[in-house]
Amino acid sequence: MHHSKTISLEDSPGFRMVRLEDMGEKEVVSRIISKLGSEVAVGPGDDAAAIEFDDGYLVVSTDLITVGSHSPRGMTARQMGWMAAAVNLSDIAAMGARPLGMLMAMALPRNLEVERVMEMLEGARECCHQAGTSIIGGDTKEGDEIVLTGTALGFVEREGLLRRSGARTGDILGVTGPMGLPAAGLLSIEWGMEMPSGRKALMEPTPMVREGRALSISGGVTSCIDISDGLAHSIHLLSQAGGVGFQVDWHSIPVGEGVTDVAKKTEKDLEDLILYFGGEYELLFTMDPGAVDSIREKIPCITPIGIVTEDRENIIRKDGEIFPLRNEGWEHFG
Amino acid sequence: MHHSKTISLEDSPGFRMVRLEDMGEKEVVSRIISKLGSEVAVGPGDDAAAIEFDDGYLVVSTDLITVGSHSPRGMTARQMGWMAAAVNLSDIAAMGARPLGMLMAMALPRNLEVERVMEMLEGARECCHQAGTSIIGGDTKEGDEIVLTGTALGFVEREGLLRRSGARTGDILGVTGPMGLPAAGLLSIEWGMEMPSGRKALMEPTPMVREGRALSISGGVTSCIDISDGLAHSIHLLSQAGGVGFQVDWHSIPVGEGVTDVAKKTEKDLEDLILYFGGEYELLFTMDPGAVDSIREKIPCITPIGIVTEDRENIIRKDGEIFPLRNEGWEHFG
Repeated sequence: MHHSKTISLEDSPGFRMVRLEDMGEKEVVSRIISKLGSEVAVGPGDDAAAIEFDDGYLVVSTDLITVGSHSPRGMTARQMGWMAAAVNLSDIAAMGARPLGMLMAMALPRNLEVERVMEMLEGARECCHQAGTSIIGGDTKEGDEIVLTGTALGFVEREGLLRRSGARTGDILGVTGPMGLPAAGLLSIEWGMEMPSGRKALMEPTPMVREGRALSISGGVTSCIDISDGLAHSIHLLSQAGGVGFQVDWHSIPVGEGVTDVAKKTEKDLEDLILYFGGEYELLFTMDPGAVDSIREKIPCITPIGIVTEDRENIIRKDGEIFPLRNEGWEHFG
Repeated sequence: MHHSKTISLEDSPGFRMVRLEDMGEKEVVSRIISKLGSEVAVGPGDDAAAIEFDDGYLVVSTDLITVGSHSPRGMTARQMGWMAAAVNLSDIAAMGARPLGMLMAMALPRNLEVERVMEMLEGARECCHQAGTSIIGGDTKEGDEIVLTGTALGFVEREGLLRRSGARTGDILGVTGPMGLPAAGLLSIEWGMEMPSGRKALMEPTPMVREGRALSISGGVTSCIDISDGLAHSIHLLSQAGGVGFQVDWHSIPVGEGVTDVAKKTEKDLEDLILYFGGEYELLFTMDPGAVDSIREKIPCITPIGIVTEDRENIIRKDGEIFPLRNEGWEHFG
C-alpha cells in the first residue's frame, strides 16, 4: 500500500472545535466510557476489561506508553519495555487475575537502532517472567516516535473478580506496600541524589500479580484498584465506584525507605509525594473487617490505612486533625 | 509523573549501529520471533497468538496503525478507527476464531479535536458490530501523532484452529473473494476516478470473520492466512510455513469488479494489482481435495485458484505458460 502523510482531521466546518487539550484525559476517557458503556458487561471503567468466559472472566488490559509522556530522564530502552509490560500486568493484578500472556505492539522510528528494539523486548520479557507469564505476540510499524502498546491477558474465577466498586461501610482500606518511592525516585534524579530503590520503583515497578491473586482467593476483599494514578486519586475512584467515603489515617500509611529523607533534602512536602504523585504500582483495596487477620497472615506486606464510611467524603486524619483528601492525580492532556 | 522529552536511545558506544531502516519490517519481525519463539506454544509467526485454554485456544491479535504509514489520501477519522479494528479481526478470522471483544489504545496529539476521537471510536465500533463483537476497553495517551492499537480476542475449539502451516501436497488453494479492489481503489483516488467499491475495500475492508469460522468448522481446511500483505506474499508465507509449493492458475483468480478497467485506464499491469499490492482482507487457505465441494456449498463465495505441490517453488500458470510467483509484499521500514 502506498504512503501518504496527508490526512485532514481538521476540516469540520460549523463546529466549535473542542480539542483534547481543552479537556484533560479523564474527561476524554469518561466520554469514551459513556459512548461504549452500554455494550459491555464488565467493561471500561475498571482497571481492565473482563469478559465472562467459561466459569470465570477473561481479563484484558491495553495501555500505551509514548516516549514523550512516560519517560523520566535517563530511562533506558529496557526500562521502557519493562514499563509497557508492568502497567498492564498491574491492571490485571488489580482485578485478581492470573496472567495468561502479553502482546506488545510497537511504533518505531526508522532511524532507531535494532539493538534498542531488542532491549525493549528484553525488558518487557523480564517483567513478564517475573510475573510468571511471557510475551506471546506483537506487531511493529514505522512511526514518528516510539509508542509501545502492551496488552495483558488474564483469567480469574467468577467469584474472585476484584472491581473498583464494592466497598461497604465499615470495610478496612489497605495497601500492599510502601508509598512515595516513585516520587522520591524522580526527585533524586532531578537533584542528582543517589536513590536506587526510588529509581527502580519509578522505572521498573513490580506489578503486584501474586498479591492480586492472593487478595482474590482470600474471598474477603470487596474492591481493588492499582495506585498508578496516585493514592489520593485512587481512593477517590474507589469512593466514586462504591458510593462510599474513606477516612484515611496519615500515620498508618507505610512510607518507602528514604522517602522522608528525600522530601526533607529537596524541601518538598512529604504529603505531596505520598498522596498526589502517582506512578505507584501497589494495590489499594477494601477488606471485610472480619477477614483482615487472615488476609494479613497470607500476605504479610499488607497495611491497613483507613476505613470505609457512608458519607461519600474522603478525608485524612493527621495529628488529630481532619483534612479533605483532594482528588488530584495525573492528567495527560490539558 | 513529570514529563521529560530527553531519552537517549542513541548512546551505545562501540557498536556498529544497525537501524530499522537498514533491515525492513520482515527482518525485524523475524528477529523478534526468534527471540521470543521458544516460550510460546502457538505464538508469533501466525496471524495471531493462540493460548491453550479450556477445550480450545484463546486467539489474540494486536496491530497498530499510525496516521503516517497506513492512511491513504482522504481517509476519514471514522475509517481509521474501522481499519484499526478490521486488521485485528481479520487476523483472528484467519485462525478460525469467534471474536470475544476488542480493545482500542490510542495515542492522540493534544490539538486533535475530540469529535475526531469519537468518530474513530465510532468507526471501530461499527466494524466490531459487523463482526458480531464490540469494544470492551482501551486507553488514551498524548502522542506526537495518531497511533491506534487495536487488540482482538477470540476463541476457537481445539480441533478448529487454523494456522499458516499445514498445507499438504495435493490440497486445493482457495480464496474467499475477489482480488485487486484495494489496489484499484488507491489508483482511483490518485487518478481522480470514481470507484466506490475499491475505496471501500481500501479504507473499510470487511474482515472475513464468518467465513473464517465456517472454514474452521468445516474440518477440511489445512492452512489459512489473511491476504493483507498481498496475494503473492501470502502464498509464499503458506509455502514457507508448510514446507510445500504452490501452483496458481492466473485465470482462476477472481478479479474484483472494475479492477481490470482501472488497470487499463491507468496503464497499470493487472498482475501487479492482483498479486503484489496488498491491503486485501480476504482469506487464503488450503483445503483437502475431498472437502472442496462441501466447503463451497457452505461458503459460496469461495474460489479454488491453485494446488499444493511438493517442490517448494511457487509458480503461476498464465496462458499456458509458467512464471515464478515473486515473493514481494508490503514493507514498512527500509
